[in-house]
Amino acid sequence: MRITIIGVGMLGGSFGMAVRKAGAAELVAGVDLDRATLDRARERGAIDAGYLDPAEGVAGADLVVLAAPVRSILEMLPGLAPLLGRETILFDLGSTKEAIVSAVAGLAGIRRYVGGHPMAGTEHAGIEYADDGLLREATFALVPPSGVDEGAVELLTDLVRRIGARPVVISAERHDRIVSVTSHLPYLLSVVLALAAENLAREESRTGEFAASGYRDTTRLAASNVRVMADICLSNRGPLLRAVEEARRLLDGLAEQIEQGNETELVRMLTEAKESRASASGERSTD
Amino acid sequence: MRITIIGVGMLGGSFGMAVRKAGAAELVAGVDLDRATLDRARERGAIDAGYLDPAEGVAGADLVVLAAPVRSILEMLPGLAPLLGRETILFDLGSTKEAIVSAVAGLAGIRRYVGGHPMAGTEHAGIEYADDGLLREATFALVPPSGVDEGAVELLTDLVRRIGARPVVISAERHDRIVSVTSHLPYLLSVVLALAAENLAREESRTGEFAASGYRDTTRLAASNVRVMADICLSNRGPLLRAVEEARRLLDGLAEQIEQGNETELVRMLTEAKESRASASGERSTD
Repeated sequence: MRITIIGVGMLGGSFGMAVRKAGAAELVAGVDLDRATLDRARERGAIDAGYLDPAEGVAGADLVVLAAPVRSILEMLPGLAPLLGRETILFDLGSTKEAIVSAVAGLAGIRRYVGGHPMAGTEHAGIEYADDGLLREATFALVPPSGVDEGAVELLTDLVRRIGARPVVISAERHDRIVSVTSHLPYLLSVVLALAAENLAREESRTGEFAASGYRDTTRLAASNVRVMADICLSNRGPLLRAVEEARRLLDGLAEQIEQGNETELVRMLTEAKESRASASGERSTD
Repeated sequence: MRITIIGVGMLGGSFGMAVRKAGAAELVAGVDLDRATLDRARERGAIDAGYLDPAEGVAGADLVVLAAPVRSILEMLPGLAPLLGRETILFDLGSTKEAIVSAVAGLAGIRRYVGGHPMAGTEHAGIEYADDGLLREATFALVPPSGVDEGAVELLTDLVRRIGARPVVISAERHDRIVSVTSHLPYLLSVVLALAAENLAREESRTGEFAASGYRDTTRLAASNVRVMADICLSNRGPLLRAVEEARRLLDGLAEQIEQGNETELVRMLTEAKESRASASGERSTD
């Protein structure tokens, strides 16, 4: 199998490294906007060959993987469609799925498409941060649109397993709803914390000295790539706004118990959060 | 100098270990509710001697350190006051300061009190999690009430330096306002995320599989000791409710830009958060 990865940054590069390490492809080609990135991707073992021209890069590919921010993927699709072979499978690693699935459905020329989303990443961007172990043990969503052939889904399920990730076949709608709560809402609340601390720091010069590990952990996501995250927020608008509404409701509930000094109910809510977090993260509760 | 630590859990134990390691006291005594904890604290090098009876434990102490949840400290103070010698300095490591400073001011018999709060901790509780390096490089707030002698503040400033932490002398009001934003709001938003994910998981069985590192980091604080955190929320009610109000305002602002598809303003806010976070945490921005 010949695989072409379009976009060899942190995620595309990590995917390429994992595929090459697993020996899951005869050739991994990379397409990117500048030669230096392609050279570095080859040096780091993410690709076998680099192309600036997408037409050259995808020629003869069995699988084309789009590893770019959601909006870049949406912008690339119309130009890419005519370049794909009849049997070529198009795959993407975009963070939201409904917008991409819909765009693909509206294009002639893309016969075999499956959406993808590995639940792994860091706040860093660029090929230097690519890591062949990034996707290991990660949940890897596979989102087959209605009508796609079983063969394409099977090939990708197998590929995901071979690179050590855990395939989960799921609809775009369910995927987008889940990640709005588990990924995108955490990002927005992380942004809220960073902005609140910044506003305080304007009046209170010692703020920075009090930002300890709790603050650093909860604001780590705020350091994510802004372009990538703005795309995600705007392309997953509906589910994300519902998640924000839920967060507001929960925050109001907590504030109400604090305001009224209702310790029993406050402790109940905090305990529920602690236990839920312990079970969701697979970590044991320590007291 | 003889130091007595009341409460040899994660924080009190870490303080004792650091003091002993630095050779900053001739004797570190510990007081706790059960013998097994005291024995373990001695085995772990946190104390030289353990006492179940506070009167015995504090007898002859130059410095008494209260390392307990805020409300436990408030409950202990009246019984402790008559046990303190004329020159004994009372110190505490509670997470909020105004409530404790006020309580001490209302008690006869406590002549020398300084509040303290090391900006270090983990979500874990108990002597097993004590660590002699926990306080190293940490900001350590020292909160002298009006009227306390300079000697007491100097002794504590010196002690904090000797254990490798960074003393910051600050008023209770300023301290409580800062930590409401840098510590307590992050905790509440972490709780909100854990509860939102739990509510989703009731309807959507695959939620847990999608909880990746971003979710785990942003919800780590939700795993904190509930008793400790409920005390903090209720004893820092005013500043915390104002911080929640600010968070709500910021979240509404972000949601509004997302709803209206106002990319320019959304990107501006996300960029501000990213840059602010990078400077506050001393980490460099990666793109």
